[in-house]
Amino acid sequence: MFQISDIDHLLPFILKPDNIARFEVANGRPQVVIGNRSKYPLEQSFVTCDSVEAVAQAIEQMVTQGAGPWQAAVCALALAGHETSHLAKNEAWPHLQKAQARLVATRPTNTALARRLELAMGAAEQALKTDRPLDQAITQWLAETRRQIYADYAKRGRLGADLIEDGDGILTMCFAETSFILTLAMAWADGKQIHVYVPETRPFLQGAKLTAPSIHELGIPVTLMGDNMASGLMADGKIQKYFTAADLITVDGHVVNKVGTYQHAIAARYHNIPFYAFAWGLDRTRPDRASIEIEMRNPEEIKTFKNTPTTHPDINAIYPAFDITPPDLVTGIVTKNGVYRPEEFGESFQ
Amino acid sequence: MFQISDIDHLLPFILKPDNIARFEVANGRPQVVIGNRSKYPLEQSFVTCDSVEAVAQAIEQMVTQGAGPWQAAVCALALAGHETSHLAKNEAWPHLQKAQARLVATRPTNTALARRLELAMGAAEQALKTDRPLDQAITQWLAETRRQIYADYAKRGRLGADLIEDGDGILTMCFAETSFILTLAMAWADGKQIHVYVPETRPFLQGAKLTAPSIHELGIPVTLMGDNMASGLMADGKIQKYFTAADLITVDGHVVNKVGTYQHAIAARYHNIPFYAFAWGLDRTRPDRASIEIEMRNPEEIKTFKNTPTTHPDINAIYPAFDITPPDLVTGIVTKNGVYRPEEFGESFQ
Repeated sequence: MFQISDIDHLLPFILKPDNIARFEVANGRPQVVIGNRSKYPLEQSFVTCDSVEAVAQAIEQMVTQGAGPWQAAVCALALAGHETSHLAKNEAWPHLQKAQARLVATRPTNTALARRLELAMGAAEQALKTDRPLDQAITQWLAETRRQIYADYAKRGRLGADLIEDGDGILTMCFAETSFILTLAMAWADGKQIHVYVPETRPFLQGAKLTAPSIHELGIPVTLMGDNMASGLMADGKIQKYFTAADLITVDGHVVNKVGTYQHAIAARYHNIPFYAFAWGLDRTRPDRASIEIEMRNPEEIKTFKNTPTTHPDINAIYPAFDITPPDLVTGIVTKNGVYRPEEFGESFQ
Repeated sequence: MFQISDIDHLLPFILKPDNIARFEVANGRPQVVIGNRSKYPLEQSFVTCDSVEAVAQAIEQMVTQGAGPWQAAVCALALAGHETSHLAKNEAWPHLQKAQARLVATRPTNTALARRLELAMGAAEQALKTDRPLDQAITQWLAETRRQIYADYAKRGRLGADLIEDGDGILTMCFAETSFILTLAMAWADGKQIHVYVPETRPFLQGAKLTAPSIHELGIPVTLMGDNMASGLMADGKIQKYFTAADLITVDGHVVNKVGTYQHAIAARYHNIPFYAFAWGLDRTRPDRASIEIEMRNPEEIKTFKNTPTTHPDINAIYPAFDITPPDLVTGIVTKNGVYRPEEFGESFQ
């Protein structure tokens, strides 16, 4: 059976599960330790929280992001479960429910966080019936859930790595997380010489802050650039593959991902470079392009850099957070079950 | 005959000739006043220099850019010419030559600056023969040169404006200077409703700092965005024309311009949006793509923003300052003589 330890050596600091968030009892004191992505890459540091409220505030203050918040929240629920060992049995469940409500409130629009907490509560409910320690039941649920998730990452990573040829230059966009990093790490471990090109990804610079340092940490050659430079590299023959994550893929194969994904996909097609997107699953409530609403974020984020204005305050700006790449520009969608043509995607999760 | 005053009302602050650089005698003291582009758009301010050395240092410190340095340098030469009124006649020419040498040294690779100074020296040489005041001869040469340049800008602006239709959304890249701004101002004055979309242009943010504020100042609707967002707007039907400047156009019609121009040209073609580039002239020493060398600038500029690091210092980065758009992606080249297909460009300056 797959264990996370099988691939731990292929993961950079910020993607190792224990560095994302963990519940532990140190010197008899329960605590949640959260990897501080807001300090990365300049520091590899942690925020240690001794209460559910402290974890909730850390999530609200963006100490972690991506797949981090729900894992930190489940660890906080384990901490609340640990606290119930000092409570009467009829007080345990209300105590957990109070923690759950506080944690759900940290991300009112992130349904993944709420859904995972609900599942962890289910594990706690079972433990309550059999008098098992609640923190143990919740951490065990988290470990098994992570094991399944990382098993899927590893499958997608293997499929992605097999798409890469020796000598490939690889373009990405934003931070394509574990499936992509494992793709690179496995191709590299297979002895393929690769070079990864990373656009900085304005305005939040996930490419500069997360992707390039993660790849560099694994010893894989990586070059950072502006979001306006990939096409020139394609014309120079430096890029052979383009890989991104996908926040969502519609049933009919439209890839919704960080803004900028689409323009690179157009340029990739113009230069006959294949584009592969990693899918986390299939959402049947999103059949097609018309079912997508693009989140328009605060345009002030375009007009400033770390609170320094980049333009006159009167200037109007826009910041669509995502864009949509139509299926005719997508070579393949990498799922845990295989690599599919975009038009096959709807049938790939039977 | 065309006079700059004919179009002065169509020019924003930073493109009015007197705001770029001027020589003047104020309260009997000669000075060169240079528009301070490093403070724009947060301030519309000037740097006042009372010596050739002060102007040279202002140029070296990037107080002005684009078409600014050569104009500031010629104004400094006028200041040196003014100083010769206190000198013996045989000292005048060496005094001017010393000024010229100092000013040429400010931009060792900018041949435009050296060439313009040489021409201004020619005007001064004539004045010396006829005992005319040298500062007057140089400022008169500058005024006539500017008049011809702005006459050409106005011709290109008129041609560009006529390419725009009522209701057009217009994309640009970087700061396409006076031909493009006049294109917009003339279309707007013709009563065409337009909306201009401006990518910020990392790493130096010319779009955010120069283009968007200039257009806003003229009262024309303008929206700033990241360099990764234009394609999504094209898919949404918000862009109908794409206009840029060109640092160079090869005789066979390759457009060399600020990096990012190419990817927007590919996306424009994918969405059937015409792309027009403004040409300042024809350089017969650059016949084709193979004759172009792309300047690779200091990659530290990608890794920082106003000296704040955006990534880990160990990360490798690249910063090609320009890219090359091949003629098959170029709809038309706007010259003072007309709008040409790229394959006609070499014959357009007979």
